[in-house]
Amino acid sequence: MSADSFVAEELLPRAGPWRPYFSAKVGFRNHWYPAFYSKELDEGNTRTLRILGENLLFKRIEGKVYAIRDRCIHRRVRLSDKVECHTKGTISCWYHGFTFRWNDGVLCDIIAVPESKVIGKKKIQTYPIEETKGVVFVFVGDEGFTPPPLRHDVPPTFLDEDMYIEGASWIVNANWRLGCENGIDEIHRYLHRESQLMIETKRSIPLGHKSNKEDFEIVEDPDGPKGIIDKFSPEKMFFEGKVEGKVVVSGLRLGEGQKSRPVSASMWLPCTNRVIGFPNHDLTHFEWCVPVDEKTHRYFPMEGRRVSSPQEAAAFRHEFVTRWQPLAHGTFLNQDVASRESQQHNYVEDTAWFEEMLLAEDFLLIEWRKLASRHARGVQTPRHTG
Amino acid sequence: MSADSFVAEELLPRAGPWRPYFSAKVGFRNHWYPAFYSKELDEGNTRTLRILGENLLFKRIEGKVYAIRDRCIHRRVRLSDKVECHTKGTISCWYHGFTFRWNDGVLCDIIAVPESKVIGKKKIQTYPIEETKGVVFVFVGDEGFTPPPLRHDVPPTFLDEDMYIEGASWIVNANWRLGCENGIDEIHRYLHRESQLMIETKRSIPLGHKSNKEDFEIVEDPDGPKGIIDKFSPEKMFFEGKVEGKVVVSGLRLGEGQKSRPVSASMWLPCTNRVIGFPNHDLTHFEWCVPVDEKTHRYFPMEGRRVSSPQEAAAFRHEFVTRWQPLAHGTFLNQDVASRESQQHNYVEDTAWFEEMLLAEDFLLIEWRKLASRHARGVQTPRHTG
Amino acid sequence: MSADSFVAEELLPRAGPWRPYFSAKVGFRNHWYPAFYSKELDEGNTRTLRILGENLLFKRIEGKVYAIRDRCIHRRVRLSDKVECHTKGTISCWYHGFTFRWNDGVLCDIIAVPESKVIGKKKIQTYPIEETKGVVFVFVGDEGFTPPPLRHDVPPTFLDEDMYIEGASWIVNANWRLGCENGIDEIHRYLHRESQLMIETKRSIPLGHKSNKEDFEIVEDPDGPKGIIDKFSPEKMFFEGKVEGKVVVSGLRLGEGQKSRPVSASMWLPCTNRVIGFPNHDLTHFEWCVPVDEKTHRYFPMEGRRVSSPQEAAAFRHEFVTRWQPLAHGTFLNQDVASRESQQHNYVEDTAWFEEMLLAEDFLLIEWRKLASRHARGVQTPRHTG
Repeated sequence: MSADSFVAEELLPRAGPWRPYFSAKVGFRNHWYPAFYSKELDEGNTRTLRILGENLLFKRIEGKVYAIRDRCIHRRVRLSDKVECHTKGTISCWYHGFTFRWNDGVLCDIIAVPESKVIGKKKIQTYPIEETKGVVFVFVGDEGFTPPPLRHDVPPTFLDEDMYIEGASWIVNANWRLGCENGIDEIHRYLHRESQLMIETKRSIPLGHKSNKEDFEIVEDPDGPKGIIDKFSPEKMFFEGKVEGKVVVSGLRLGEGQKSRPVSASMWLPCTNRVIGFPNHDLTHFEWCVPVDEKTHRYFPMEGRRVSSPQEAAAFRHEFVTRWQPLAHGTFLNQDVASRESQQHNYVEDTAWFEEMLLAEDFLLIEWRKLASRHARGVQTPRHTG
Repeated sequence: MSADSFVAEELLPRAGPWRPYFSAKVGFRNHWYPAFYSKELDEGNTRTLRILGENLLFKRIEGKVYAIRDRCIHRRVRLSDKVECHTKGTISCWYHGFTFRWNDGVLCDIIAVPESKVIGKKKIQTYPIEETKGVVFVFVGDEGFTPPPLRHDVPPTFLDEDMYIEGASWIVNANWRLGCENGIDEIHRYLHRESQLMIETKRSIPLGHKSNKEDFEIVEDPDGPKGIIDKFSPEKMFFEGKVEGKVVVSGLRLGEGQKSRPVSASMWLPCTNRVIGFPNHDLTHFEWCVPVDEKTHRYFPMEGRRVSSPQEAAAFRHEFVTRWQPLAHGTFLNQDVASRESQQHNYVEDTAWFEEMLLAEDFLLIEWRKLASRHARGVQTPRHTG
Repeated sequence: MSADSFVAEELLPRAGPWRPYFSAKVGFRNHWYPAFYSKELDEGNTRTLRILGENLLFKRIEGKVYAIRDRCIHRRVRLSDKVECHTKGTISCWYHGFTFRWNDGVLCDIIAVPESKVIGKKKIQTYPIEETKGVVFVFVGDEGFTPPPLRHDVPPTFLDEDMYIEGASWIVNANWRLGCENGIDEIHRYLHRESQLMIETKRSIPLGHKSNKEDFEIVEDPDGPKGIIDKFSPEKMFFEGKVEGKVVVSGLRLGEGQKSRPVSASMWLPCTNRVIGFPNHDLTHFEWCVPVDEKTHRYFPMEGRRVSSPQEAAAFRHEFVTRWQPLAHGTFLNQDVASRESQQHNYVEDTAWFEEMLLAEDFLLIEWRKLASRHARGVQTPRHTG
């Protein structure tokens, strides 16, 4: 690791067309990421977040959320160790009274050195915020980089007016890319073949499917999100698994037709998976694997339902907590979490990425790595986090 | 540490004639090592082992033990995280159903991708096994390296037909070489001078002995184990220890003649010590210091007695548990374990090997390092463990 | 980190005139440091200490304290793991009986190898000791470096005959330089503005003061301690803190005149702060931030009062425990400790020293770094600690 890269420089060329993805061990810069849920930050409160190796401090002021670096520019203490806000619009460092404006980060006062020449001339790093769908999104980017609209960094339909979102988040002990690849992995359904979710919803899950390389789509519209869509061809699915010619395991076949199974999975920049028709036929699943550091990501599974009234939204809120959180998050998704964490043990060394043995049927993973490498707006380096 | 060596390349030349030994921080490859005791793996069960930095998975099938790498070749998850054996002769990865044959490692099926072209063409690493004397030995070696017979890697007499073995194993927090050198260290008896073992068995232990450089033998027979034997000259022993001319400590002199003390100690490749006449006059002590990782070895002390009937074996089994395990392992050998762990604190940096101050009387250690360097069949590198 | 430096070589030139200070991540060699208090080592007892990354073993023999390296020269075990002193003036290693004289470190015997040729020719590292004011000072230095008198390495007045000292010590999880700089930091009083100490002693503390660059003194007398004195101009102090033009916080103004506040603060090599008139008008505060390792220092705050009889000393001893330890150490100084530990999070990477943003008003810190760099007698490297 040098100041320029979390990955040894001599390894980078080996990744070829997915070199930026390979080097983005701690994430892609200049993208929007979910930080936390709106309900997790009340008026006047603060909270911290570690994301892409940077420590941030958030505050909600008159309804609006602001974010700054949680590190005083002077002697680098953590502002969050003792939050001192003497006026509504500012925060003062507890150590020497360096005072920053929440909205633009400008050093507007130094209480202990009121005549300092640097007052008004320096600033602390601020982070653009967008809050929608009950989620606070933060833009982790370079000074002077104009954030693109949020809709460029979320999957299609997520921002639709009638799409109502409920979600959760927790820490997964695996690099964020293992999380993403688990999401777009076409052949990992085998893992879920006995899922309680499928049994309880009377839906079907095949053991795998015979691959069709034409069965996917790459989305690279300049004015929208960049992603790759796996279209799931039902006619290629199969439900009986054989070893040495004998059937040894079976998938679940509890329903028929499109309603009985997810319709498509897709993967979007910066780290976002969408599955239409999951965890039930009338739901859309969105999930983000947000980099925390080299070995950890924050997992944000969210379930979306189209609603036409506040009553329907309230009903879904109840349903999410009582049904989808225990059933889909608690059982099904935690199987994915366990996979990622099991993989992580053998991806600690960066060379692991060249020692894995992808199948022809894993081509979607490679396409995802290449797509991400083409469209990512920057790579996080130790220089940004140090 | 580079991919080629666990030790910084620029240090290697400093070790001169024991360079391979110095670089073998995580052990010598292409050797037989004890993995565990036969009784620790029942029919149909599996168990894992970390050895020389590699993670292995073992299974006993119809009496025979098999071992494979505990890492799927596809996406590098640990097979042991959820063992799935759908047929007697295979194991399937829980993630995508990659199915390997225990006996040769061949990828015989991929349950989720039954038509994959790589089926039958790839394999997972397998490890040759020999089971004898109640011990499962595993050969940690290169693909295509033909294992020599086990008798090349165990001390003489260990495999003798009438030699009955009982033993134990536990983890020691020290590099494996510190364990070996503690075993062959001629002058460390001082440490054991008040051993409860000696008192209870009415045997003698000197404080040290005046060295005789002709009193050892190097064994390099091409068709047998490679080792170095310290012959212990009783006439050079002494039992009174002086500081500034005054006697301050004494060895134990509780018996006379050859029965009252060990007859010889010897050290054998890959990491094996033998002491004839220990822990009692009619026993032979064998011990292995098997590398786990840079800082840890698994210690296998075993006691052998010549028996002529199953009844005698059963009697010794009882005697081992009630007498030698508490007395020899619990008190005497644990003094050695403490020494190794105390040394380890100051051998974390590889330069320590050039900052120690060996005596002329430590020549056996140097002879052992040179012998091991001449005959070891390979050195473990990060490339093997990564 | 190389064998030559705890800091990457390529970073060193960036520190310019304070390069030695920057490289002294684990402290300055060839200086006197407080090790522990006299009362913490009774006659005939031993104790260990980790200081500047080295492990030491101390013993008090006939009233005098001796210190040696806690690592046998032979096989590098820790002597302290089992202390064996067979004669009053020696210690024998528990492993092979290497016996060293406490006073000069000479290897005077090897119990297990009584005829060894190296007896009398090798030595273990010894450390000069000075004991005064109830404190045991140790000189951590190079072989053959003649220690200067202790008075060169303690602040003026500390050794005055009528100065009676009481103190404490504890571990702080921050690099030692952050401790020093917190001590000489002129503008950090803001942190202490609500200190219980000031309220209870009815003394004053300003929020800060308007800086005066002529208001300090550098002391570089060849025959005395090297330091930098901040003279505190009372006429420049202020007690009202403003944000956006409004008063938001106040300092404490509980007393008038010189007795109501500390008179001056100063910083001395190797790592020593002195504050006259703290924690009360008739006391002098001395403190050392002694390097333990890269991330830790041992903090020794000591309070001195001039006394003219044993009765006055005894009275102060009682006062220290009941009043100054809870009030000054427990509340006030622990605010400084928290600052250092908060800073440490963002000074783990050495580049942090070039990313901090010092004010013109921080010139004393820079002057301290330069002074220390001019006069330090050596820099600790991995070669010394390995």
